[in-house]
Amino acid sequence: MPTPSDPTTGLDQVLDALAQRFGNRFSVNETVRQQHAHTLTWTANEPPDAVVYPQSTQEVAEIVRLCAGARVPVIPFGAGTSLEGHVNAPLGGVCIDMSQMKRIVAIHAEDLDCVVEAGVTRKELNEALRHSGLFFPIDPGADASLGGMVSTRASGTNAVRYGTMKENVLALTVVTASGEIMRTGSRAKKSSAGYDLTRLFVGAEGTLGVVTEVTLKLYGLPEAIVGGVCPFPSVQAACDATILTIQSGIPVARIELLDETAVRAVNLHSKLGLTETPMLLVEFHGTDAGAREQAERFGEIAAELGGGPFTFAARPEERTKLWQARHDAYWAGFTLRPGAKGLATDVCVPISRLAECVTQTQADLAASGLIGPIIGHVGDGNFHVNLLLDMADSDEVARAEGFLERLVARGLAMDGTCTGEHGIGQAKIKHMAHEHDASALAAMRALKSALDPRKIMNPGKMID
Amino acid sequence: MPTPSDPTTGLDQVLDALAQRFGNRFSVNETVRQQHAHTLTWTANEPPDAVVYPQSTQEVAEIVRLCAGARVPVIPFGAGTSLEGHVNAPLGGVCIDMSQMKRIVAIHAEDLDCVVEAGVTRKELNEALRHSGLFFPIDPGADASLGGMVSTRASGTNAVRYGTMKENVLALTVVTASGEIMRTGSRAKKSSAGYDLTRLFVGAEGTLGVVTEVTLKLYGLPEAIVGGVCPFPSVQAACDATILTIQSGIPVARIELLDETAVRAVNLHSKLGLTETPMLLVEFHGTDAGAREQAERFGEIAAELGGGPFTFAARPEERTKLWQARHDAYWAGFTLRPGAKGLATDVCVPISRLAECVTQTQADLAASGLIGPIIGHVGDGNFHVNLLLDMADSDEVARAEGFLERLVARGLAMDGTCTGEHGIGQAKIKHMAHEHDASALAAMRALKSALDPRKIMNPGKMID
Repeated sequence: MPTPSDPTTGLDQVLDALAQRFGNRFSVNETVRQQHAHTLTWTANEPPDAVVYPQSTQEVAEIVRLCAGARVPVIPFGAGTSLEGHVNAPLGGVCIDMSQMKRIVAIHAEDLDCVVEAGVTRKELNEALRHSGLFFPIDPGADASLGGMVSTRASGTNAVRYGTMKENVLALTVVTASGEIMRTGSRAKKSSAGYDLTRLFVGAEGTLGVVTEVTLKLYGLPEAIVGGVCPFPSVQAACDATILTIQSGIPVARIELLDETAVRAVNLHSKLGLTETPMLLVEFHGTDAGAREQAERFGEIAAELGGGPFTFAARPEERTKLWQARHDAYWAGFTLRPGAKGLATDVCVPISRLAECVTQTQADLAASGLIGPIIGHVGDGNFHVNLLLDMADSDEVARAEGFLERLVARGLAMDGTCTGEHGIGQAKIKHMAHEHDASALAAMRALKSALDPRKIMNPGKMID
Repeated sequence: MPTPSDPTTGLDQVLDALAQRFGNRFSVNETVRQQHAHTLTWTANEPPDAVVYPQSTQEVAEIVRLCAGARVPVIPFGAGTSLEGHVNAPLGGVCIDMSQMKRIVAIHAEDLDCVVEAGVTRKELNEALRHSGLFFPIDPGADASLGGMVSTRASGTNAVRYGTMKENVLALTVVTASGEIMRTGSRAKKSSAGYDLTRLFVGAEGTLGVVTEVTLKLYGLPEAIVGGVCPFPSVQAACDATILTIQSGIPVARIELLDETAVRAVNLHSKLGLTETPMLLVEFHGTDAGAREQAERFGEIAAELGGGPFTFAARPEERTKLWQARHDAYWAGFTLRPGAKGLATDVCVPISRLAECVTQTQADLAASGLIGPIIGHVGDGNFHVNLLLDMADSDEVARAEGFLERLVARGLAMDGTCTGEHGIGQAKIKHMAHEHDASALAAMRALKSALDPRKIMNPGKMID
């Protein structure tokens, strides 16, 4: 449990000042506060003392300066779709809700980049790009805010081809823990001028400052998109097909594993008639000829490994329906156990260990008597288990806790990470010491102290 | 001029201890010391007090602990190919030469990654990969060490397709400024578990610690490589063709501009009969059909902009000869002015401003009476000017200084960076304050103090 080095003082004065300054863009309403600590995991709700809705970087700086002066915690809030208790306020404080910072500041089509305020969501950005022939590919499923995606180092289905947020942020505007406004980089595609401040804030989970503006890379819409589904006799075969596809240099845009349980859930939820075996959902981007060539090569690899038939989704509507079903997979899980609490977790391992890791995890689920569809961004060695839990059954909850410990231990033993894309938040803090050596943890603590000496930025998250 | 917070004490004891411990892997010979401060720019030679050649991470840790105890500066040294005075020792100290750390620790072909000691050069790595069907694409021209490439955030000709070191380092082993051994990440392709220590050390120029081991992404050798040269009537036309190529989503692997002066130099040096106009040297990687399709599309774009004919280098030997000529372009420059001192500098701008930036720079060279072939990784908006100077002519040197100031100012005014890939070293420290705002500089200083409180790591570089 984190404790600030000094007791929080002057909270009331800060709240009064914010109320006066922000009027109806400030709230201490209990429902509003609880909504802002909402989390999709089982972490208890720990609401902030107040929520404020700035409309500019300058306003964010004002808020942070007020809080810093009185050592009041600051919790940045995007769309509230994080999964590990990132937006809870264990020490109270002021939640900065970015939802009124939605300006598309600039679209530089010639440079394939754009500048947006942090409250813009990925779907809103793509809507703004609709007539430009460009798109922003990073797609974690949820319609997260881009500031939030920066802060959790988000990735998702397209990352195998287009990279994660780490590779796609050119620069940030950040309000520092002392309330200064900082630009972390230029619009140059690359730079060797100094420490990589941009990458330091990507994935920092709001613990070093508030991201207020994001400069992102964009991509030309592919001329052709070809995709489809391919059943496999086993998870092993599906993973082996993935490995071979990546190794062959086929620039697959999306390659998603659904295990048999996940396929059953998706069938029930989205009224699809997919074969209920492990399945890969794939997509290829390129020229007409190029995308088709990629798909054909994938089909050959799949057949070699006993998979198939590889069914193309020729029409865009079919493809959209498939990917919507994939994105709804989290919600689809509940059809397997109506009324259950969902707990989504993720690990990521070197791809050569993926089949082993998923297979052992399925066996562990069975042995633990737990229901958990598995869905994976397998091109990156990343997979999710969506546990469906009866929280009233303390024995089941205990079994789930044991399972989660073993899942992380398994991933780490394979030279992987305890989270590929969800982040640490509150729920995985204990695993930081399992994953990182003492020197790395000491370095992270030194960075935190250097940039947030008052320990006000999203306390109780990522590192203790 | 940097000054350590405390005067260096105990240097003699440190040198004695190192001499005893490392025997003939320790040297205070003046020639050896001067070679280790060798730099390809006009920065004066500032040799270290001694050079030591460790053979393991543990030995590096021993050396750093000894130096840290006595606050003796530590200067990591790779292959000595950096360009901005990165390896000078303005405060003396101990140079750690990594050339005896050349183990290929592991090649994980299935995972498309490898682990190598920091002294391995990029050519040595590719030689070790020769029979694996894999390669490491980052190619800054010089046969730099991989530790050095990490530390300058190197990139080069292939970066437009494969990214820079930033995108291609999975993890590092680092000896911290206090002599602890730290691993910055796992072999997972992506992670959201904590601050991105890896990216903090990539581009840190040895000012935060010594990189001793590098985990790198590898790529399958492309099935087909197609490339060639294409002359253009103007730099503007060549740049416009580049912009259109990138915007069209053609995944060009290399797209290099040589201005007319650079082509003349290359012709003289490498006995090529290239048309002496601005030229693009391009290469496409893919399947047979895919690479050919890319090349054809590029040819159409070039023709639209008045360029051409686009001549394919069909045979690998021809292609190798062309790229060797490109890589020798720095040395080729001297054929234009035998006996001159070469000074290579680089800036990087958003691609839409590239033609303007190069054209203005050519005009500035002419107006300043300076000779400087221009060569650019134009797909990234990055270009080099290789000034050829008579250092005995103080007026010319003064004109060169003025030119360099204006080049950086021009790049920054276009929302670019003062260096795309060479780094800051000593020579560009003054530009850090031109490029970064006060908050960003303060953050960088805070990071430096947090991780190197004794200020022993490569002092006088990057930030003052």
